[in-house]
Amino acid sequence: MLSINTENLDKIDSAHGLTQGEIEKETALIDTFLENIHKRKQGFYKIIDDSGLHEKVHSFAANAKTKYKDIVILGIGGSALGTICLQQTLKHLYENELDSAPKLHVLDNIDPELIAEIQDIISLESTLFIVVTKSGGTPETISQYFYFRNLIDNKGFNPQNHFIFITDPEKGLLRKIATEEHFISFEVPPDVGGRFSVLTAVGLVPAAIIGIDIDKLIEGAKSMRDNFLDERKESNLPFKLATIQYLLEKKGKSINIIIPYAQKLIKFADWYKQLLAESIGKKSNENGEDVFTGITPVNALGVTDQHSQSQLYNEGPNDKLLLFIKTKEKATDISIPNLFPENESLSYLNDLTFGKLIDTEMEGTLQALTKNDRPTITIEIDKINAYALGELFMLFEAATAFLGEFYNINAFDQPGVELSKILTKQLLTPTENDSST
Amino acid sequence: MLSINTENLDKIDSAHGLTQGEIEKETALIDTFLENIHKRKQGFYKIIDDSGLHEKVHSFAANAKTKYKDIVILGIGGSALGTICLQQTLKHLYENELDSAPKLHVLDNIDPELIAEIQDIISLESTLFIVVTKSGGTPETISQYFYFRNLIDNKGFNPQNHFIFITDPEKGLLRKIATEEHFISFEVPPDVGGRFSVLTAVGLVPAAIIGIDIDKLIEGAKSMRDNFLDERKESNLPFKLATIQYLLEKKGKSINIIIPYAQKLIKFADWYKQLLAESIGKKSNENGEDVFTGITPVNALGVTDQHSQSQLYNEGPNDKLLLFIKTKEKATDISIPNLFPENESLSYLNDLTFGKLIDTEMEGTLQALTKNDRPTITIEIDKINAYALGELFMLFEAATAFLGEFYNINAFDQPGVELSKILTKQLLTPTENDSST
Repeated sequence: MLSINTENLDKIDSAHGLTQGEIEKETALIDTFLENIHKRKQGFYKIIDDSGLHEKVHSFAANAKTKYKDIVILGIGGSALGTICLQQTLKHLYENELDSAPKLHVLDNIDPELIAEIQDIISLESTLFIVVTKSGGTPETISQYFYFRNLIDNKGFNPQNHFIFITDPEKGLLRKIATEEHFISFEVPPDVGGRFSVLTAVGLVPAAIIGIDIDKLIEGAKSMRDNFLDERKESNLPFKLATIQYLLEKKGKSINIIIPYAQKLIKFADWYKQLLAESIGKKSNENGEDVFTGITPVNALGVTDQHSQSQLYNEGPNDKLLLFIKTKEKATDISIPNLFPENESLSYLNDLTFGKLIDTEMEGTLQALTKNDRPTITIEIDKINAYALGELFMLFEAATAFLGEFYNINAFDQPGVELSKILTKQLLTPTENDSST
Repeated sequence: MLSINTENLDKIDSAHGLTQGEIEKETALIDTFLENIHKRKQGFYKIIDDSGLHEKVHSFAANAKTKYKDIVILGIGGSALGTICLQQTLKHLYENELDSAPKLHVLDNIDPELIAEIQDIISLESTLFIVVTKSGGTPETISQYFYFRNLIDNKGFNPQNHFIFITDPEKGLLRKIATEEHFISFEVPPDVGGRFSVLTAVGLVPAAIIGIDIDKLIEGAKSMRDNFLDERKESNLPFKLATIQYLLEKKGKSINIIIPYAQKLIKFADWYKQLLAESIGKKSNENGEDVFTGITPVNALGVTDQHSQSQLYNEGPNDKLLLFIKTKEKATDISIPNLFPENESLSYLNDLTFGKLIDTEMEGTLQALTKNDRPTITIEIDKINAYALGELFMLFEAATAFLGEFYNINAFDQPGVELSKILTKQLLTPTENDSST
C-alpha cells in the first residue's frame, strides 16, 4: 500500500506546518464523517465491486482491440480526464507514435481545429467512437456525436459498428438513441458523479481496449477503499490526507500543488484538479450559509517544474501546500556516464543513475522548502502500475469526500456551473423579446 | 494588434473589480517604470532586432530540415517551455502522428522512463540533439547530453553531425565543449534570462527547423515591443495588463488563471507560468525588505476546463483574476449538423458551428463570472498564427517587467532556486564529515 509521509510538516514553523498531535486529534471525527458520507448514498467506493461490469468490459475490449485501429473518446471533463490519466500513466510515453493499435485519442474540446485535425490521423472505417456523457445531453459531446455520426452515415457505414455510448442507464438523449437504435452501451451509475467516474465504464472501457490491466487497477482501488472504510486512526490514509489539506487551508494554505516526480503521472494532477475544484469549491454549506469554500489545485511535475515554479514556491507568499508523489521503485533505470571524470565540479555525476538523480533532486527540493517553512507531504507509491494508480484514484476520491465533511458542504454537486450553461443557451437561442443578443 | 478588453472589471463589485479610472490613474508611472527597466539592462526586448541571428537560424534550419528525421531538445524550464508552446500553437495538433519530418521532441525531464522510451521512436542515425542550457551547466541537461553523446560515440557516428549547442557565448561547460570540439552552436545572450529566451536561438532554432515562420513571429513581437516602449497611456498594453494584475492582487486576487479558448494555445500557459512564477515570486524587494511577493499562475483551457474548474472559479474563494484569451477569427470552422431538428431542447444547435459554439460558451462563462463578481479580462488575438504568438510572448514578457517595477523587486533573478540545487549536490557528494547523508 502507498504511504503518506508528513514528517516535514513537523519541522517547520507551526504557523505553517502541523504537529503530529494536530493531525491525530482530528481522527475522532472519522466515525461521524463516514456515517455522513454513507448517508449521501454515493457510489464511487461501491462501483468497484461490480464484477459483472468488469466481465462485460473485458469481453467488449477483447473484441474491440482487434477490430479497430483508432478509438476516439467524445467526452469532456469527468468523461475524459480519468481516461487521459490512465493512458498517460500506464502506456508508453510515445504510444501513439509507435506501430501499435488501437490508438486512443481523447477529444475533450470543441475547437474546430481539433475536430478538423483529428481526421487527418484516423480512418473513419476503422475507428470506434466512444461517446461519454453522464447526463446524456452535454452540448459539447452531443455536437461532436452529431458531427461524426453524420460523417459515418454519409460514408454509408453502419453506425452501430462505429459508436458505443457510456451514459445514464435510463435518462437523457444519448440513452434514448442507444435504446432506439440498438447501440452497444455501458452505464454511468446515477450515484457516481462524473468526476468520480474513472473506475466505472467511463475509464474502464477505453483502458481495457488499450490493454491496461483493469483488474489490477480495481484491486488497488479496493485496497484503498477498505482502508478508507475500515481504519479509524491516522492509518486511514484518505482521512489523513484530508485532515492535512483542511487544517493547512485554515492556516492560509489555500493552494494545493500536486507534483509527481514521475513523467508518466503528468496527467494525474489534471484529473485531480477537477475532483478538488468542483467538489470543494462551494458557495453554500449544508446549513445554507455563504461560505465560499475552496482549495485551488495546481499541477506541476518534478523535476521539470523545479525550473519553472520552485522560485515562487520557495520565496513567494506562503499560501501553498505541496503534495509530492514519488515512486519507491523505478520501472527502469539508466546510468549516467560521466564523460569528464577528471572534472571536479562534475563529481556529483559519479555512479549516478537518472533514477537516483530524480529522487535526490526531489529530496533537495523538499529540504529547501522545509528550510523556507513551506509545508510539504510526500505520497510514496511502490511503482508506476495499474495497482498503484487504482490506489491513488481512490485515495484522492475518498479524501475529497472527507474534505466535504470537514467543510460541511456537499462535495458531490456542482451548482456553480449551471449559470454559464443557461447563459450560453440563452445566447444561442435569442427570443424576439431579447434585444441583448 | 491584439486587444485587451477590461469592461467586465467595471461591472462587478468594486471590492473585486476595477474602474476605468483606477486603471488609467496608474499610467502616470509608465515613464519611471520604463526608465527603471532600461537601467536593468535586459535584452528580452532588444534581441528581436538581431537580424544576423535570424539569418543564421534560417540557413541552419534549411539544411537541418532535410537532413534529420527527428529533432530532440535536451533542455528544461526556460530552455524547453517556449519551444513546446511554439510547436503546439503553430503546428498540426497531431503533427508527430502525421507522416511528416522532421519531428520535434522536447525532453524536459530526467525520468529514466522518458529517457528510455524516447529511444523507441527515434533512430539515432537521423536524429539531431539540440542541447540547450543558458548557463552551460544545468545538471539535468548535462546528464542527458552525456548519455546521448555516449550512445552516439558508441555507434561510431560523428558527434558533430548529431549535436548542436545553444548556450552562453563564453562561459560554462557546454561552451567549452563547443569550442574545443568544434560543434555548431548558437548563443543565449547573457542579458536574456532563460524564461525570457523564447525569441532568441532557444526558441527560434527548433521553430525554424519544423517550419514555423519565425520572421512573422519576430514581427509580431516587435509590434508589441514598440507599443511597450512608445505608448504612454492605457494604450500601452503590457502596462495595462500589469496594472490590472497588480491592482487586483492588492485586492486579494493572488491567483491568475490563464484560460485560452483555443486548443492550440494549451501550452501557452505553461510557458507563462514560469515567467510569472519565477519573475514575481520573490522574498525580498529592492530595498532588501522581506516582502514575499508573488502571483500564482494556473493554466486552464476553454471550453474543456469549464467542465472541471469553473465551479471553483464561480463559487469558491474570490481570490482569482481570470485572463481569457480568444481568437477573433478561426483558422477553420465546421458546421454542426442538428440530427434532431424537431427536438425543441436541441434548437440551440440550429445553424451552429463549432467556432460559434466555443465563442458563445466563452461569453456565457464570462457573463456568469461577472454575475458572481469574479474579475475577468479578455485578450483578443486576430487568429492563431506566428504573428499573434509573437505579440503574446512580448505582451506577457513586458507586462512581467512592469509588474516587477510595481512590486519594486528584481523580476530577472531567481535566488530561490539555488538552495535546492546546493542541497541536491550535497546529497550527491557526501563528504566524510557529513554524516547526514
